[in-house]
Amino acid sequence: MNIKDNAPTKPEITTGPLPASDKVYSSPKGHEHLNVPFREIKLSGGEPNLRVYDPSGPYGEEGYVADVEKGLARLRTDWIMKRGGVELYDGRTSKPEDNGNATGDRLARAFPIENQPLRALKGAPVTQYEFARDGIITDEMVYVAHRENIGLAKARDNAQEKLDAGEGFGAELPTFVTPEFVRSEIARGRAIIPANINHPEAEPMIIGRNFLVKINANIGNSAVTSSVEEEVDKMVWSTRWGTDTVMDLSTGRNIHNTREWIIRNSPVPIGTVPIYQALEKCDGDPVKLTWEIFRDTLIEQAEQGVDYFTIHAGVRLAYVPLTAKRMTGIVSRGGSIMAKWCLHHHKESFLYTHFEEICDLMRTYDVSFSLGDGLRPGSIADANDAAQFAELETLGELTKVAWAKGVQVMIEGPGHVPMNKIKINMDKQLKECHEAPFYTLGPLTTDIAPGYDHITSAIGAAMIGWFGTSMLCYVTPKEHLGLPNRDDVKVGVITYKLAAHAADLAKGHPGAQVWDDAMSKARFDFRWEDQFNLALDPETALKYHDETLPKQSAKVAHFCSMCGPKFCSMKITQDVRDYAAKLNEKQDGMAEMAGKFQELGDKIYIEEDKLAAEKKSNEDL
Amino acid sequence: MNIKDNAPTKPEITTGPLPASDKVYSSPKGHEHLNVPFREIKLSGGEPNLRVYDPSGPYGEEGYVADVEKGLARLRTDWIMKRGGVELYDGRTSKPEDNGNATGDRLARAFPIENQPLRALKGAPVTQYEFARDGIITDEMVYVAHRENIGLAKARDNAQEKLDAGEGFGAELPTFVTPEFVRSEIARGRAIIPANINHPEAEPMIIGRNFLVKINANIGNSAVTSSVEEEVDKMVWSTRWGTDTVMDLSTGRNIHNTREWIIRNSPVPIGTVPIYQALEKCDGDPVKLTWEIFRDTLIEQAEQGVDYFTIHAGVRLAYVPLTAKRMTGIVSRGGSIMAKWCLHHHKESFLYTHFEEICDLMRTYDVSFSLGDGLRPGSIADANDAAQFAELETLGELTKVAWAKGVQVMIEGPGHVPMNKIKINMDKQLKECHEAPFYTLGPLTTDIAPGYDHITSAIGAAMIGWFGTSMLCYVTPKEHLGLPNRDDVKVGVITYKLAAHAADLAKGHPGAQVWDDAMSKARFDFRWEDQFNLALDPETALKYHDETLPKQSAKVAHFCSMCGPKFCSMKITQDVRDYAAKLNEKQDGMAEMAGKFQELGDKIYIEEDKLAAEKKSNEDL
Repeated sequence: MNIKDNAPTKPEITTGPLPASDKVYSSPKGHEHLNVPFREIKLSGGEPNLRVYDPSGPYGEEGYVADVEKGLARLRTDWIMKRGGVELYDGRTSKPEDNGNATGDRLARAFPIENQPLRALKGAPVTQYEFARDGIITDEMVYVAHRENIGLAKARDNAQEKLDAGEGFGAELPTFVTPEFVRSEIARGRAIIPANINHPEAEPMIIGRNFLVKINANIGNSAVTSSVEEEVDKMVWSTRWGTDTVMDLSTGRNIHNTREWIIRNSPVPIGTVPIYQALEKCDGDPVKLTWEIFRDTLIEQAEQGVDYFTIHAGVRLAYVPLTAKRMTGIVSRGGSIMAKWCLHHHKESFLYTHFEEICDLMRTYDVSFSLGDGLRPGSIADANDAAQFAELETLGELTKVAWAKGVQVMIEGPGHVPMNKIKINMDKQLKECHEAPFYTLGPLTTDIAPGYDHITSAIGAAMIGWFGTSMLCYVTPKEHLGLPNRDDVKVGVITYKLAAHAADLAKGHPGAQVWDDAMSKARFDFRWEDQFNLALDPETALKYHDETLPKQSAKVAHFCSMCGPKFCSMKITQDVRDYAAKLNEKQDGMAEMAGKFQELGDKIYIEEDKLAAEKKSNEDL
Repeated sequence: MNIKDNAPTKPEITTGPLPASDKVYSSPKGHEHLNVPFREIKLSGGEPNLRVYDPSGPYGEEGYVADVEKGLARLRTDWIMKRGGVELYDGRTSKPEDNGNATGDRLARAFPIENQPLRALKGAPVTQYEFARDGIITDEMVYVAHRENIGLAKARDNAQEKLDAGEGFGAELPTFVTPEFVRSEIARGRAIIPANINHPEAEPMIIGRNFLVKINANIGNSAVTSSVEEEVDKMVWSTRWGTDTVMDLSTGRNIHNTREWIIRNSPVPIGTVPIYQALEKCDGDPVKLTWEIFRDTLIEQAEQGVDYFTIHAGVRLAYVPLTAKRMTGIVSRGGSIMAKWCLHHHKESFLYTHFEEICDLMRTYDVSFSLGDGLRPGSIADANDAAQFAELETLGELTKVAWAKGVQVMIEGPGHVPMNKIKINMDKQLKECHEAPFYTLGPLTTDIAPGYDHITSAIGAAMIGWFGTSMLCYVTPKEHLGLPNRDDVKVGVITYKLAAHAADLAKGHPGAQVWDDAMSKARFDFRWEDQFNLALDPETALKYHDETLPKQSAKVAHFCSMCGPKFCSMKITQDVRDYAAKLNEKQDGMAEMAGKFQELGDKIYIEEDKLAAEKKSNEDL
């Protein structure tokens, strides 16, 4: 619906499985109340089906009928209530400024159901960090352990070998993920499960260096364009293609109502940047921001169920002048808001001075920190400068405060960074922030390709993911140019999925290559349909194939349009292999020969006699 | 034209400058007969125009009228004739099998003009390598030195600083490129200028680790689809977007005629894989290939003016069995052809046994080697295996043979390689192949994203370019799925341009960041038109912007659709900067303060008194 239109239209969303896929659920042994979702891709040619990680929620089930006015089932409510230490209470009353004082036909319709919020009882542990530190394994931990084991069963036989062949730069990936491993990683602060107790609809997932690399998709309307309907659709759409979390970066009017629709329907954790809404409550004037307005906004969003908050508490007054000579100054919205506030009032940032209160508040709901990098570089020229690193050091200091308060923490990172300066970001983050998960935007590795910044940034994202970043915030083709539409969101998500997967492969994640192997085998066998279905984006793979060879017969053909029927290297290789197999029957075996050849080095194979007879009977090789 | 259609239709091609750009020519001092092309992007706001490297040839000139039936001006003929040592002679007569025995309306029209080929006189030096080794600086060397200096004039003041800040992994980038430097790099075998004396239309360019990273675009019809007209158009189109060389990988009928149209109209070096055409002459049956047929094909193509040949001489009989247990066997077309030939005849490859004769033949025309990696991995599973590295070692051995024969050499590389295994490819290539330029396809860093393999491979390409690869062979979105169309070619070229540029930046190429800085400055100044015009793909940048904010007024607005007018970090940063400037006038100066803040570390700025008065007069900051 248009922002002018508050008629009771339902957001339209895309449901149903991806091609040749089933949504399947699996319960960890002894935890039959937990149903962990996977996508199972059906393969042909006698190949076993392939299960893959799947954050799309029930929307991906065959025949699932979504009722966005009811929202998703509240799957975690029982778990939360069972462990106790929480209470239902009458939450904050929604105020007109929560929606930018929109009225009449400018006010987006409120979500039809009101839920009473939960909060921690005084003194009772409530965050995953607190439980982990106390030695308690939560249902969420069991759930994510099972979820993270995808691929590991198939790779069981050579898991250690895979790990050894990878390069993890100090990561400690396990060959099998136990709930206890999850607990210990959270307790050490090396991983988080963003899971606000008021967002029980979300399926638990974990963000940490010793787990699969995750991705985030940003959505959100702005003052200039887009609507509630579009944003709910984009959220579901982005999880369909594989995003692990979604950030709602809405600005302008209707922020509160938009967010409620999104959270109630989201199977993945939702992050926000509360300062955006706080600013709207001050008519967009950073100077008018106060701790009280900000605090009230945090409560508002925590009660709704936001799972992590980006908070730019590292933008300190003293760092602002460090940006004055930059090529592109401060490019983070949150960073620039706080910089303006600090300079104008000539005071230390209220986010910094009230940080402990923020922690207490976030702990009450188990909202995780995403400590914002408000001074991240906005250009290659500004990468790794004094302002950026000064802020990073402060984020490390704040990490310890948050942990002491029982709050889960991750750290945001840049930005625009040339390849040679990426690793130092990772190394410094690990050191300064005590291995708290790193969550980076890109980084973009050059500034000269607007329209292709999903690619300039995927290069940096894949690399920093390999080096140890836990979650990669996507960049769409519209970056620097406009707001992403549905197609842009999909391209951004797929691009970041492939970057995250490339990082998993390079780290030597034992289960990662199972997917690549399934694809490569399908390629070699000319199982075209399987190739499409195994693709991160099956629709595009099929469409591209059909642009050249649209006929159904081409999908069973043992050749493709690139080389044509006679000219196919895969075909010739099969001949080579068949030939080898025949040799194998009659002679010492090709495998043994291969060994022999390796010994011989580059000496020419000389066993011509042995093959002479064979050759004659293989003229048609 | 369709392959069935040999009516005298002219290939339609795209000409004229990119938006806000002029083609300009500049002569190196003392070499007024050399006119080196650049593209000059006109900027607004008093910013100096930006010159960038431009391989698009005269097609990019304002008002240029292309006559594809005449071909481009033969700019190097004078240079070649002046230095002597060559003769015109009656070349090989074209044979029906050169065009796959196409006749009647299946035969594509021949290029209308016949040129007599040139060849070296017996014993006379003719290749750039021979001249370089003899201490002679050719016009081509002077030309490329001037061309490579793009950006270096603007970066003059901090060239050494840029170099020092980069990481070149042993590259020895100069702060200024002299003709003598070019000569010495060629003489050492570390760079090549692919420049067949029978392709005088091409503008010289250099491929080497100590120069700008280059890219190649593959075009070519196949037995299944596409036509002469499309291929000429794709060649010009790909240079328009910045490809540095083009490989014509045509198969099927009309290979000879297609190639002639391409070469006569190409401003960039053309590469081929001669075994493809040789195979067509054997009805597509690798077993029927002979040295004589191959040799005849080399002569045919060398006389036409092909600048570099991919020759898979490293696929030796002994290595074929090493591929039998691979996930995807042999995926190189050339590699699989030769493997089949070797196995069937049970003989060493004729490319290997006749390698010296191939050298002699290529030297005669200054055709450069691109020693093919016929055993490159076709999947993540097969990366860096024994077969691949055995071949690489042989390529190193052949490099020395080629150099001894006076021939220029580059080495082809993989393929599909996970990130953690990329650098070893580069290191091993440098070591085994004595620093001959590396020319890689991607590598693709995961197998699971068909439809996005321009991106999976751009990640690997940017990295290996940074590590020392001299030229990156593009991959289009259609890789593994179909043949690229015009749009795919453009996306592939832009993607690889940004990867190559990211590599230049990371190496610390002193002139590279000039372009990024111009873009970043335009961003910060809200010069929207300049941002589009500075983009690698101005059309797409503009289109994406206009999808959200189509009005002309938005192009002069000091905000964008992402944040809206009130919410702009760039705007706020400008406020911060203005504020700093005001402080600067009245007080010690912001810069000095910044220094002070750095000293203070994270201590809060305490000079509140000083600012009190200022603050009052800046309530509207």
